[in-house]
Amino acid sequence: MREINIGLLGCGTVGTGVAKILIESKDLIQSRIGATLNLKYIADIDLKTNRGIDFKDIKLTTDAFEPIGDPDIDIVVEMIGGEEIAKSIILKAIDHGKQVVTANKALLACQGNLLFKAAAEKGVDLAFEASVGGCIPIIKSIRESLVGNRIAAMVGILNGTCNYILSKITADGSRFEDALSEAQANGYAEADPTLDVEGIDTAHKLAILTSLAYGMEINFKDIYIEGISGITSLDIEFARQFGYNIKLLAISKNMGSMVESRVHPAMISFDNPLSNVKGTLNAITLTADAVGNILLYGHGAGMMPTASAVVGDLVDLARNLLTNSTARIPILSSPMNHIRNIPLTPIEKIRTHYYFRFSALDRPGVLSKITGILGKYEISIKSVHQKGRKTNSSVPLVMLTHLAEEADVIKALSEISLLNVVSDEPVLIRIEDENRQE
Amino acid sequence: MREINIGLLGCGTVGTGVAKILIESKDLIQSRIGATLNLKYIADIDLKTNRGIDFKDIKLTTDAFEPIGDPDIDIVVEMIGGEEIAKSIILKAIDHGKQVVTANKALLACQGNLLFKAAAEKGVDLAFEASVGGCIPIIKSIRESLVGNRIAAMVGILNGTCNYILSKITADGSRFEDALSEAQANGYAEADPTLDVEGIDTAHKLAILTSLAYGMEINFKDIYIEGISGITSLDIEFARQFGYNIKLLAISKNMGSMVESRVHPAMISFDNPLSNVKGTLNAITLTADAVGNILLYGHGAGMMPTASAVVGDLVDLARNLLTNSTARIPILSSPMNHIRNIPLTPIEKIRTHYYFRFSALDRPGVLSKITGILGKYEISIKSVHQKGRKTNSSVPLVMLTHLAEEADVIKALSEISLLNVVSDEPVLIRIEDENRQE
Repeated sequence: MREINIGLLGCGTVGTGVAKILIESKDLIQSRIGATLNLKYIADIDLKTNRGIDFKDIKLTTDAFEPIGDPDIDIVVEMIGGEEIAKSIILKAIDHGKQVVTANKALLACQGNLLFKAAAEKGVDLAFEASVGGCIPIIKSIRESLVGNRIAAMVGILNGTCNYILSKITADGSRFEDALSEAQANGYAEADPTLDVEGIDTAHKLAILTSLAYGMEINFKDIYIEGISGITSLDIEFARQFGYNIKLLAISKNMGSMVESRVHPAMISFDNPLSNVKGTLNAITLTADAVGNILLYGHGAGMMPTASAVVGDLVDLARNLLTNSTARIPILSSPMNHIRNIPLTPIEKIRTHYYFRFSALDRPGVLSKITGILGKYEISIKSVHQKGRKTNSSVPLVMLTHLAEEADVIKALSEISLLNVVSDEPVLIRIEDENRQE
Repeated sequence: MREINIGLLGCGTVGTGVAKILIESKDLIQSRIGATLNLKYIADIDLKTNRGIDFKDIKLTTDAFEPIGDPDIDIVVEMIGGEEIAKSIILKAIDHGKQVVTANKALLACQGNLLFKAAAEKGVDLAFEASVGGCIPIIKSIRESLVGNRIAAMVGILNGTCNYILSKITADGSRFEDALSEAQANGYAEADPTLDVEGIDTAHKLAILTSLAYGMEINFKDIYIEGISGITSLDIEFARQFGYNIKLLAISKNMGSMVESRVHPAMISFDNPLSNVKGTLNAITLTADAVGNILLYGHGAGMMPTASAVVGDLVDLARNLLTNSTARIPILSSPMNHIRNIPLTPIEKIRTHYYFRFSALDRPGVLSKITGILGKYEISIKSVHQKGRKTNSSVPLVMLTHLAEEADVIKALSEISLLNVVSDEPVLIRIEDENRQE
């Protein structure tokens, strides 16, 4: 039986999961593909830790470049993480004609264009299903299942840490800091949670999806990114009174000559299935001309779900090798000469619905001052709610708007914040609700 | 640029959708695959009806065998439906070495083993993503994305007609007959709705999924099938009081030496995302060792969503032709020599939770008689609810059970129905709730 030899570079959590599947499900995979996926090499700086895997028959090395130099190795799995070393490893592997699997979203988001081009020029496969949404088959769905569709929009919950924290605040009114501490205690957040809670990890994933869905170069640096550290239980509670949950969303819309691509907390209606995605789960809704909406939902992180996606990629690449059909599917859905450079819409130019919360004095005339400024900037109010009464002290004044342009909103809020009847900075949360009628 | 020639056999609703995509998105698909998908032939008995498609450059014929005989045709799309003619067309196409795409779930469920064997022996591809769940990429996910997983269970809402009817009864308390009439008026149900409302269409789809997920021969005739025509708003209302919705579910569980495969109305908890799938939408949850649970959700029927899945298959097959890698993936996930014949568990042997509703006299001692019989058959009651009071007349008496075996339940209910304090046949609805604690 033919053997496909695999070099696993990096044996941390996900790498260990990949090794587990390749070892423990070797016969299963063999029976399915009619060939053996042979884990020949593991490279890691730490070869001592007991990972619960039997390393016999596997060559161990601390040098990630060693398996790349081995002519027997067919596929290299980059699980090292970080940018620079991973990049040079992948480029070297491509240069040696190896097929490559990676889950390194930060690297792909920041330097993917270079890597995709190198792989396409060399005619090797570069697969990265595990980089977005863990086990959710979103990349295969875009590249293959939806190949006859024009994708119009994607909205996703792509970071389990943020979704856990927001679910926790929603469930019991925790403060952000306490929900974060609990996420850390449960292993759902890193000691330094910045990448997750500030929305950067979500933006890495969105950059990859946007590129694939619309056949365009990756453009991470122009994605608008806003995290969840400013979200309070007060706003979540108000949102729920209006029929919304607050989620950290990755939003991408094909606007023709430009593409919207943004990450921020947003209110979504209870009717929207994304609204009910709880805990560390991820989910993505795609809107396309033929299918309408589809939603894919599952574990977006974790050892085995992510490893499952890596193994799916490995089998795809192995099947290509077994049938001499490497590069059967273009890396970015379309061949490189069809990949366009489409600019992202600046956040000031987007039009959406807004939730504002002002801390305003409970006094006649205050509402008129605020709505006067909003009216001056053509921001049309859908509803106004004053929460409680307190003579001569601030109360929350909440407003929901019709469609408005962000630039106008920024100007209006900045002017309103200068009013002496308004204390604290106004709170702005976007409402993502395609289906709700104006 | 290389051309892949397609013969479309049957130009009804979905066939028309396929033609639309191939014509209107020709350039898009061309740019993605680097070849032209050329719709060369359309065969249909009706060539007169205006389908809103420009037929120029397409050969038209009323003879479905004509395109099969054309040596230029690479891929045949069978959209004729029905069993016998479609079967002979597909067999003839395979015999001529054509690649085949079909959405004919009834044919695959009833005669799939024969067709899969014929295609595998000839070494051609037979693709059928559109046969289950419309545009939902469930077959690709099982065959490719989850290839490193052992699938343990699948639970799906696979029939939009039934889901529409049940959603309607749930929303406004309609009678079944009225909800069905409305579904028919809206084009969501056939004039003869038997295949849908009696669960047969769902079972066709479940037969296909079960075969793929567990690598076994298709066994449609042993699937337990119960439709929704007996579901009343009364039971839906009671279900909701306990935190459940009633859905027509396709359920399949790998029990090792046997496989459970059954279609029936079931209560599922509000917490389960399937519980909130409304209207004509479909959704499928898969449980597997590496991924845990994943859910896929979208339009399970309709012209364009189903056509999208057909075009996805066409592109897969075209890519195989372009890279000489036909039969790159085994039709049933594993090669034919690994496909086993696994028996299905008879319904009497399943163990699940139950909801019973008795029409019982509101009189002391009645409860003791009923629970006495249940106890005799080792059916343990979780809760009992008498709804309303009516001296000397029947009231609904509702019970929820712990795990029980269906054979015991059947015996107990039959004995209870003979009690003179019980009028009408007892109502039994299974509760599908893997996660709820006993």
